[in-house]
Amino acid sequence: MKIQAPYLMFLGDAPDQLAAKVANGVAKWRPDWCLGQLRFDGCGADLGLTDMSLEEAKAAGVKTLVIGVANRGGVIPDHWKASLLDALEMGFDLASGLHNKLADIPEIVEKAKANGRQLFDVRHPTGNFDVAKGSKRPGKRLLAVGTDCSVGKMFTALAVEAEMKKRGMKCSFRATGQTGIFIAGDGVSVDAVISDFISGATEQITPANDADHWDVVEGQGSLFHASFAGVSLGLLHGSQPDALVMCHVAERDHMRGLPDFPLPSIQDCIEVNERMGRMVNPDCRVIGISVNTSMLDDAAADEYLAGLEAETGLPCVDAYRHGAARLVDALG
Amino acid sequence: MKIQAPYLMFLGDAPDQLAAKVANGVAKWRPDWCLGQLRFDGCGADLGLTDMSLEEAKAAGVKTLVIGVANRGGVIPDHWKASLLDALEMGFDLASGLHNKLADIPEIVEKAKANGRQLFDVRHPTGNFDVAKGSKRPGKRLLAVGTDCSVGKMFTALAVEAEMKKRGMKCSFRATGQTGIFIAGDGVSVDAVISDFISGATEQITPANDADHWDVVEGQGSLFHASFAGVSLGLLHGSQPDALVMCHVAERDHMRGLPDFPLPSIQDCIEVNERMGRMVNPDCRVIGISVNTSMLDDAAADEYLAGLEAETGLPCVDAYRHGAARLVDALG
Repeated sequence: MKIQAPYLMFLGDAPDQLAAKVANGVAKWRPDWCLGQLRFDGCGADLGLTDMSLEEAKAAGVKTLVIGVANRGGVIPDHWKASLLDALEMGFDLASGLHNKLADIPEIVEKAKANGRQLFDVRHPTGNFDVAKGSKRPGKRLLAVGTDCSVGKMFTALAVEAEMKKRGMKCSFRATGQTGIFIAGDGVSVDAVISDFISGATEQITPANDADHWDVVEGQGSLFHASFAGVSLGLLHGSQPDALVMCHVAERDHMRGLPDFPLPSIQDCIEVNERMGRMVNPDCRVIGISVNTSMLDDAAADEYLAGLEAETGLPCVDAYRHGAARLVDALG
Repeated sequence: MKIQAPYLMFLGDAPDQLAAKVANGVAKWRPDWCLGQLRFDGCGADLGLTDMSLEEAKAAGVKTLVIGVANRGGVIPDHWKASLLDALEMGFDLASGLHNKLADIPEIVEKAKANGRQLFDVRHPTGNFDVAKGSKRPGKRLLAVGTDCSVGKMFTALAVEAEMKKRGMKCSFRATGQTGIFIAGDGVSVDAVISDFISGATEQITPANDADHWDVVEGQGSLFHASFAGVSLGLLHGSQPDALVMCHVAERDHMRGLPDFPLPSIQDCIEVNERMGRMVNPDCRVIGISVNTSMLDDAAADEYLAGLEAETGLPCVDAYRHGAARLVDALG
């Protein structure tokens, strides 16, 4: 079941740009799908899209209202609820990245049912997953892995997909987190899946395919992250990758949320990811490195990447500054 | 919240001994807690305990009826239900290892409430877990890890705990699966926890403790198992072990449930577990090997273990044949 594009991006009264981080990612990567934004008085976020009422969105052909903002205190306020009910009444589907489920609000569920509309709570997987089989399946897969959380794995995967599309290669971005799911239209928030099924859910979203088709899989966490490494390993095994891109951030004091843990060296991280990846695919190898160098100026970034390239012998890019062409070249 | 001993083991009409595998494990490791068994006509399982009616169990001081059998087709039959309702009425708590939850059967929930009784669905964690912090906490921890699933990790952990108790050491068996939870009285089925919280749930069941106290943690799966490695890694990171015992089975064609995968070598498995364990505890090391040699005769088992010992330089035992004394000796 796929979220139907095009989208109207619901920002409500998000206090600032950061609260609309998810919506922002969707608008960046799927500009053609995001026809407008719905903002209330006092909204501090702006995606740079046309402001639209529900009526205007309907006239423009929008299919789904996408809630890509954080809500304060985990509660959906009444004035949001009124808009969401109106949207269902007018024939839009709702897709939400909120922690609280739309499916847990009886009025919303009833209204959706009465109007034959779909509700998507993208943080909360609803499918039944099988235990992973591990058997080799046709098709090629690339997975973005990382030295830490929040180092640009989704960004890198999407940059790789964009480059592959530009070259006319067969490819699909496979989403494993909420922003990615809005961007792909489907996928599974793997960190919300029951542990037994992490790899199984990943196998399901990266199924057998044409021999020359690439799944470009969004990574999560890091094998070195003391909180989330289990999720990362499940993803690595389930996606059975041929190619890994190691994602990193140029300057960070410690692992995200873990003040006691320095970041691992890129070399260690490459070695461990290849070791664990080869358990399910003997050809698995890191083909390049993608570094978020946003805190460095151009010259410092170039110097950093050149140094890393000399050290590792792998193409090193900042996908934001340079795109992913050199990573796709490295697939050979 | 702890399951209260002593137990009456409910076998119902389990067709054979295998269907009562869980109950059997509990009776083996906690003979003092298992005062009797409740069997219906045609029951093909026998734990070697006194057959008791609910009335007899009540008189004997039983607190909890433990359902440690598999039910056919995932349905709790009506004649079981009648017994369970009677048990609640008579003041027993119920603890179940069934896939279907007692908490999903309205009559059972109502009866428990009316009688002030507790229901424990040990396969289904009910707590709210935090994301793992990874910070070093006092107390020592030993984790049983494995080359595969079902190689005797729980058995080995319990043998280690028994040996430690015999020596008067401070220790606690920490359960991570259903049989273990009945044996410990509490714990978490980690494979049923949401992926984001595997390590956090493990930290919660292995909390800070006296510097000379050992948590002996039941392992799950294997870092090399394509279906469940994420669970194994979450457990490894969350339990922050000082000592690992590598568990193995002497003769097995392929990894459990994965016909395409041969078992990893013990040496590879030691290396990878130490590598991943040292991310959270630099002192983490494999202190010994525990092999299920049940398919070998005594002489062949001795030869096998001696060979492995020469190869690895670690004490190698079959915990079932020899107990865990040499493993505890190796803690130094």
